[in-house]
Amino acid sequence: MPDISIVLVEPRVEGNVGAIARSMSNFGFTDLILVNPCPLGDEAYRRAKHGRVVLEEARVLSRMDEALEKFDLTVGTTGITTSREKAFHRQAISPQDLPSKLAEVDGAVAIVLGREDYGLYNEELDRVDLLVNIPCSPAHPVMNISHAATIILYELYCADSSAAVFRPREASGFEKERLLRAFDEILTDISYPSHKRRRTEVMFRRLIGRATPSKWEFHALMGVIRGASKTIRRLKGSPATGPSS
Amino acid sequence: MPDISIVLVEPRVEGNVGAIARSMSNFGFTDLILVNPCPLGDEAYRRAKHGRVVLEEARVLSRMDEALEKFDLTVGTTGITTSREKAFHRQAISPQDLPSKLAEVDGAVAIVLGREDYGLYNEELDRVDLLVNIPCSPAHPVMNISHAATIILYELYCADSSAAVFRPREASGFEKERLLRAFDEILTDISYPSHKRRRTEVMFRRLIGRATPSKWEFHALMGVIRGASKTIRRLKGSPATGPSS
Repeated sequence: MPDISIVLVEPRVEGNVGAIARSMSNFGFTDLILVNPCPLGDEAYRRAKHGRVVLEEARVLSRMDEALEKFDLTVGTTGITTSREKAFHRQAISPQDLPSKLAEVDGAVAIVLGREDYGLYNEELDRVDLLVNIPCSPAHPVMNISHAATIILYELYCADSSAAVFRPREASGFEKERLLRAFDEILTDISYPSHKRRRTEVMFRRLIGRATPSKWEFHALMGVIRGASKTIRRLKGSPATGPSS
Repeated sequence: MPDISIVLVEPRVEGNVGAIARSMSNFGFTDLILVNPCPLGDEAYRRAKHGRVVLEEARVLSRMDEALEKFDLTVGTTGITTSREKAFHRQAISPQDLPSKLAEVDGAVAIVLGREDYGLYNEELDRVDLLVNIPCSPAHPVMNISHAATIILYELYCADSSAAVFRPREASGFEKERLLRAFDEILTDISYPSHKRRRTEVMFRRLIGRATPSKWEFHALMGVIRGASKTIRRLKGSPATGPSS
């Protein structure tokens, strides 16, 4: 992924600027450029939380041209795709499609968000290379600017770090087979009707397949199933078989 | 997609509640439930914008239990998946994987978000069927609650526009509770160690939550678990209890 900066054009509500700084920090982005912003005071810093440093190091410029000149690709955001946008010579893409577009870029990228009320003016939209539109209800299409920024940053983060997401270790295929065998044994122990047996075994296999148990869950579930089998065999006075291995 | 409600547990900042109402409105959601919230005043309504009606029609309840009892599937959100949480407690799916899980649900779904500072307490997390975690920078994982809600609503909205797929009818919330109770009973029958009991019960709840069993699967699994309980009680000579109802 290229270096990505966030450019806010004439933000008017300091709380939104702070909220965007926080969201940038949540998703590992640090470079914020403010074009002719409202004054930033306590409310902006309060909302920024741990994104305070993003806010402190934000660069303030007076013109959008100036902000965008050093970037290799500029991406504008638009909340509305009315006929006004359709008249533009480019189609807006969805946030989901943005990461693959940016992955092709060798250089620096700016994501540009406009004013809370008017977004980016037509001449500003003309200036960007690519437009992103967040799909939402046609009845209420105007999103809060920090929400719009968050969705875009989230999509970029997920695409960039899919490998980094924490997942507990899944039970292995071998362990799952042991679990299925233990389940089969308990069907025997409880004299489960033979004509229903096969489909119940398959049901359990599918259920486990969908639940993708972790190693820990495998051991806990195995403990309960084996425990039930052992209890029944002990009560019957028949020798308990060793654990399925 | 099933009917989806948003449940906020003890929100403390009215602006966040307003911002979530706005976001719900952006993505076509209307049912908001507030559990023991802070007072909602001008700031909440100012931030809600066109989502004002969502806020006006929000139901206020005093306990989370009460809020969740009518739902067939409950989804909790957690901001943290540290190594400490490797155990079952916080095994979470990503927002991207949520829509396909919910598409299987025949009934009502609650998306539950916790307090701004502490999120959901452990006992509240234990109560939900499924956990969602938004991937973000490990250095700054604590998101604004309205940002977290927005990402989840966005994913649900985007997925809902795609074609509906046939799914078998899912077990209801009531049936799942019966299944969980039957599981608890077998733990008693096999004298399961009491110090491991609680986490094993939660493990089973999560496993079932992730697997989203169909009605048929519910009955098959219930038959096996009840069958094991009955076999053990018969062998012990103690009277079998009737089916959990």
